[in-house]
Amino acid sequence: MTAEHVIVTSTTDSESAARELAVKVIEARLGACAQIVGPVTSVYRWEGAVQTGREWRVEIKTTADRVPALTESLRQLHGYDLPEIIATPIEGGSGEYLAWVTTETRNGG
Amino acid sequence: MTAEHVIVTSTTDSESAARELAVKVIEARLGACAQIVGPVTSVYRWEGAVQTGREWRVEIKTTADRVPALTESLRQLHGYDLPEIIATPIEGGSGEYLAWVTTETRNGG
Amino acid sequence: MTAEHVIVTSTTDSESAARELAVKVIEARLGACAQIVGPVTSVYRWEGAVQTGREWRVEIKTTADRVPALTESLRQLHGYDLPEIIATPIEGGSGEYLAWVTTETRNGG
Repeated sequence: MTAEHVIVTSTTDSESAARELAVKVIEARLGACAQIVGPVTSVYRWEGAVQTGREWRVEIKTTADRVPALTESLRQLHGYDLPEIIATPIEGGSGEYLAWVTTETRNGG
Repeated sequence: MTAEHVIVTSTTDSESAARELAVKVIEARLGACAQIVGPVTSVYRWEGAVQTGREWRVEIKTTADRVPALTESLRQLHGYDLPEIIATPIEGGSGEYLAWVTTETRNGG
Repeated sequence: MTAEHVIVTSTTDSESAARELAVKVIEARLGACAQIVGPVTSVYRWEGAVQTGREWRVEIKTTADRVPALTESLRQLHGYDLPEIIATPIEGGSGEYLAWVTTETRNGG
């Protein structure tokens, strides 16, 4: 992980579950800001057949050093056995905004 | 391309076309999981004027080594002359989930 | 910033404001194509409490060399004091599409 800031994305099966994940990780300062996008249609292979399902996506802006704790927290909070949890790098943009992301993810702020 | 896993995104002009792209590439193991997001409003310049249109986005999680074949397949399946097909890197998250993406994109699984 | 092409994302509080941002930056050739996604639910901490709000996201495909000017333009056009403006790298996909993004973001095209 070379980027200082990242977006961590997970998906779940209801809007309320997505909101709960978002609120809990922001409360715990594991991310500065989360966005819930959905419903989206997921298409995947399960037990040999292609399946589709309705899901909601949670996208969390955070710092790279918070990714392990955020991933572990999402795994514990999540209702799925094998949840999608992926981190994508942020490589620029507004310096002030990224500084705010850093501040919001420190303890005791 | 240095990331082992990527998200490949394309957009098309109907939800049914987006679903068809998603199902075909998952069936062909060119990706592990696709999500359809939309409708979104696209804004672009065409023949000198700014145009807007309603589109659906297909986002496919796959491995970096599948990107050339996936790109070629999307190009052939796509109804557009010059479709958007872009790959963005995944740099972390759940190791188990990323291992599942790798398994699902191998042949004969 | 090592990627040649990037996605610059911002969020704002209405669909019309999102459209205006998108149209203005495409007109100015600061990006080739923008997509408006929403509404999304944003969750963040403000003055010590977790807040939620409805927002629209603008995602702009452009070249890395246009990011500083695009960021500055979004800052000036934006109604927020501290808008989200983040750049995420594109690392592959359709070469023809990415060449089109480059052409559309040059002046005098």
